Amino acid sequence: MTYRAPVKDMLFVMKELAGLDAVAALPGFEDAGFDTAVAVLEECARFNENVVAPLNRVGDLDPSSFADGRVRATPGFKEAFQQFAEGGWQGLQHPVEFGGQGLPKLIGAACGEMVNSASISFALCPLLSDGAIEALLTAGGHEMQQAYIPNLISGRWTGTMNLTEPQAGSDLSLVRTRAEPQGDGSYKLFGTKIFITWGEHDMAENIVHLVLARVSGAPEGVKGISLFVCPKVLADGTRNDVHCVSIEHKLGIKASPTAVLQFGDHGGAVGYLVGEQNRGLEYMFIMMNAARFGVGVQGIALAERAYQQAVAYARDRVQSRPVDGSTPGASAIIRHPDVRRMLMTMRAHTEGCRAMALVAAAAYDAAHAHPDEAARKQNQAFYEFLVPLVKGLSTEMSLDVASLGVQVHGGMGFIEETGAAQHLRDAKILTIYEGTTAIQANDLVGRKTARDGGATARAIAAQIEATEGELNASGSAAALAMARHLGAARRAFLDVVDFVLAKVKSDPNAVFSGSVPYLMLAGTAVAGWQMARALLVAEQHLAAGEDPEFMKAKIATARFYGDHLLVRCGGLRDAIVDGAESVTALELEAF
Amino acid sequence: MTYRAPVKDMLFVMKELAGLDAVAALPGFEDAGFDTAVAVLEECARFNENVVAPLNRVGDLDPSSFADGRVRATPGFKEAFQQFAEGGWQGLQHPVEFGGQGLPKLIGAACGEMVNSASISFALCPLLSDGAIEALLTAGGHEMQQAYIPNLISGRWTGTMNLTEPQAGSDLSLVRTRAEPQGDGSYKLFGTKIFITWGEHDMAENIVHLVLARVSGAPEGVKGISLFVCPKVLADGTRNDVHCVSIEHKLGIKASPTAVLQFGDHGGAVGYLVGEQNRGLEYMFIMMNAARFGVGVQGIALAERAYQQAVAYARDRVQSRPVDGSTPGASAIIRHPDVRRMLMTMRAHTEGCRAMALVAAAAYDAAHAHPDEAARKQNQAFYEFLVPLVKGLSTEMSLDVASLGVQVHGGMGFIEETGAAQHLRDAKILTIYEGTTAIQANDLVGRKTARDGGATARAIAAQIEATEGELNASGSAAALAMARHLGAARRAFLDVVDFVLAKVKSDPNAVFSGSVPYLMLAGTAVAGWQMARALLVAEQHLAAGEDPEFMKAKIATARFYGDHLLVRCGGLRDAIVDGAESVTALELEAF
Repeated sequence: MTYRAPVKDMLFVMKELAGLDAVAALPGFEDAGFDTAVAVLEECARFNENVVAPLNRVGDLDPSSFADGRVRATPGFKEAFQQFAEGGWQGLQHPVEFGGQGLPKLIGAACGEMVNSASISFALCPLLSDGAIEALLTAGGHEMQQAYIPNLISGRWTGTMNLTEPQAGSDLSLVRTRAEPQGDGSYKLFGTKIFITWGEHDMAENIVHLVLARVSGAPEGVKGISLFVCPKVLADGTRNDVHCVSIEHKLGIKASPTAVLQFGDHGGAVGYLVGEQNRGLEYMFIMMNAARFGVGVQGIALAERAYQQAVAYARDRVQSRPVDGSTPGASAIIRHPDVRRMLMTMRAHTEGCRAMALVAAAAYDAAHAHPDEAARKQNQAFYEFLVPLVKGLSTEMSLDVASLGVQVHGGMGFIEETGAAQHLRDAKILTIYEGTTAIQANDLVGRKTARDGGATARAIAAQIEATEGELNASGSAAALAMARHLGAARRAFLDVVDFVLAKVKSDPNAVFSGSVPYLMLAGTAVAGWQMARALLVAEQHLAAGEDPEFMKAKIATARFYGDHLLVRCGGLRDAIVDGAESVTALELEAF
Repeated sequence: MTYRAPVKDMLFVMKELAGLDAVAALPGFEDAGFDTAVAVLEECARFNENVVAPLNRVGDLDPSSFADGRVRATPGFKEAFQQFAEGGWQGLQHPVEFGGQGLPKLIGAACGEMVNSASISFALCPLLSDGAIEALLTAGGHEMQQAYIPNLISGRWTGTMNLTEPQAGSDLSLVRTRAEPQGDGSYKLFGTKIFITWGEHDMAENIVHLVLARVSGAPEGVKGISLFVCPKVLADGTRNDVHCVSIEHKLGIKASPTAVLQFGDHGGAVGYLVGEQNRGLEYMFIMMNAARFGVGVQGIALAERAYQQAVAYARDRVQSRPVDGSTPGASAIIRHPDVRRMLMTMRAHTEGCRAMALVAAAAYDAAHAHPDEAARKQNQAFYEFLVPLVKGLSTEMSLDVASLGVQVHGGMGFIEETGAAQHLRDAKILTIYEGTTAIQANDLVGRKTARDGGATARAIAAQIEATEGELNASGSAAALAMARHLGAARRAFLDVVDFVLAKVKSDPNAVFSGSVPYLMLAGTAVAGWQMARALLVAEQHLAAGEDPEFMKAKIATARFYGDHLLVRCGGLRDAIVDGAESVTALELEAF
């Protein structure tokens, strides 16, 4: 077995930190209590451990391939995808009326982690279908929803998101694909889209492309972009004029085809407007929080798998005598303090980001289903603040974790056969797609911090301070250390929030010089806060004699998070607040 | 041109920080003054920019390949290696009596950076020959030296280092290859060696393997290991019984074959003892400082090339309007603060580590050639302290720099065609081979800090403090900021030195839990110190109106180093001193 889903840790976080019981009390989620969560997670674990996880390496060795306009998926992927769809996993979080299971995001996020640990390349296909489904749920008319969503949920069809063009990546205002109205309510699309994940493949009967394009005569810039649905096969069974002309040769996630799609080279690709004209980017932004959250979960998933592989190797590999002489000869390298440090770093990052992501997911559920409007609003603001942190921090840390995973393997890690290097190669896309870390940081600064005058940021800081109080009240050595580190992180965070608010209008270069460090600081503080909450809960359970091994491990990992990761916040604060000038001091010509 | 050698920065560091004039005043280096350095560096730049650099991508796409016991190097490598040898580059630092040029390490290190920027895979072949040459110079008899060294220096033959076996990586005490004396002074070797860089290839007439093995009946452990020379082709022209049985499929540096060598499967490989029996590991350790220094330079070299490529892309790629509205529409991304932050981070890391490495190289020269014994000793201690920092920090930072290089490219960075991803793949070996970062950190803690009771560490701290004084005397805003950051880093460093000395015997687990963070802290402090010295020199030149653009750039980069990299030292100190316990707190079974 190359992967074991961390069901126990997920359930602990869901129940103790994210408020699974409260989510199950929300209207519509009455059946989604602890027992349901256990049953769903265990079934999900079985499926992904046994069916998907073995395909991860296969997909790296025998990636999807392109010939004559067609893409052949990695052998085994089609069958696994059929099982995935038949198991109902595609519809987990989608409405029952369209064939979904209507479960909360809290459960969906945990399941999402599992399929991504099993294989990110594989998981991207349903992830993109989720995106298409959400776009249609958000902005599509009833007829359009009926035409596409049930087939997407059943897995007969899959979905894609067509945003990027060669000149329009982070800046979608530069999109040039054009849509010409045909008078019958349909449009013809013309243009080139690149980096289209699972844009062409042989795993489903049809592919539903969601496409950003400009209606002829629309305004320049972001306000002239509309969203279209453009299926590969039209309702009458004819092939639409959208064709894959090549797929990319990539560093990682090689099993997921990254397609260049050509629209309208043979007369025009038939498309249908989704929602209102010129509101395409707005719809995209609604979806994007979901997609970004999903990519953050990919980072956690990858980190978990890299960690498990490194632990297995470190238990097995014998090399050198321990520095404390605790074994007479060479020992398994897991006994060496630096190997422990690496494994603990991997573990703490993963558990911290998982806790942050699942707490965010629960807030999403409350934001959508809570009967009280004020509670909905508050949860929505909290969720939206956390999305760039989940995306930005979980993906950046996954790179470090994957690199440490290779390092634990020593020379063997550099040999592709070992499989550790694949995680590093795969991880590097996560900090780039669905908005680079810098784009997440822009979002954090602009929409999430400055727009409400720092209200959400300060509310979070106040909650962190309350946790510090609980830690001090606990009084254990671990809790006191954690309180100290968390307090320092919170103060660093607040300093930066003040800096951002003071300068974002008057000196935007200074603020955006530190935007990514701000994201890393805020993410580390919030994830560390969740680890602090976990520590408190674990202490209580331990005192009650419940599951002492798990609780002791949680306390040790939380303490490590404080001692080794939260301590980074001070340096980040200084770099942001005192170091803005030196970021842009070098003349452009001098680089 | 994909690479331009940073000759100007190298000469600045050599002259202003490393004391090129003082090196040229040492006996034997009288001809190695500034003019010689300029001439050699410029010629070296021309060769590597034009001949080697274009091969880097070729080697990634068409790696060395194995069939029927033979390895074919990447097309073009053989011809380039011949030119390299004919240019005299192999003998740059080696004795004139064996056909070398006898230049100081200070010049050699700068040239070494260039060939490694051009292609690490290519550069590894002469780097390994250097290792073999140094082994023979260190421990070989005169006849043996005459038999091998001139051919190695001329490039007719190349050299390898055969240390690793499947069960013996970081822990060479586990070496099992055995050597049976034949009565005629020769030995027959039997065993398997793995990870032998350039262990087999078609670029030279012969390959001189330096091999660690145990003479039958030798003591167990490290004290029973001897060093042998074992040529692929014997003096009488017969093929020796050492054969390549496979090469590895690796994450990066694909053009350099990594061989599994089988010794003695057909009757025994003829080998000759180098130096005295059972002293093999000791000889290796003498050489290892050189090899480790060389790998550190590889990190700097890789970072420089990744930086140059990212700058070129950032100047070219147009995307999004600047946050300060300084251009009416989308601009080149180099105008965006976060891109600047990434490029400055890459640049500061590279320049800082380069300065540290060249200063170390000059100390090596003085340690070997200074007429005064006290000066030799002092320089030797300084050099030896710096070697793990040069190796550890330069390679760890090269990973971050290469990852940032991909990030600057956005989605294009993930496409292999772009070439940015190759640097990330190549970089990952650097933190592993010639001793992982943890092994460097062990060396730093044990041999370099504890053995002399912290004397060298504290002497360095005192020199740093003197530089702080000069910064404060300068009084400029940049110098004052730098003084503050440097002072904090120095105090953090001293705290950790005290911690190490206090606990290394009584609580080795605590010390080695923080050994890698200590290395990162010490390296950052020492590299930052060199940047601080550079800042002071640059201010003086600027005041005198000399080369103002270069001097302003150096000041800006130094300031960035202080504001953004030195500020990490405080968190590292806290993690080491306060966080040791949490590294090993988790029970082994709980991972």
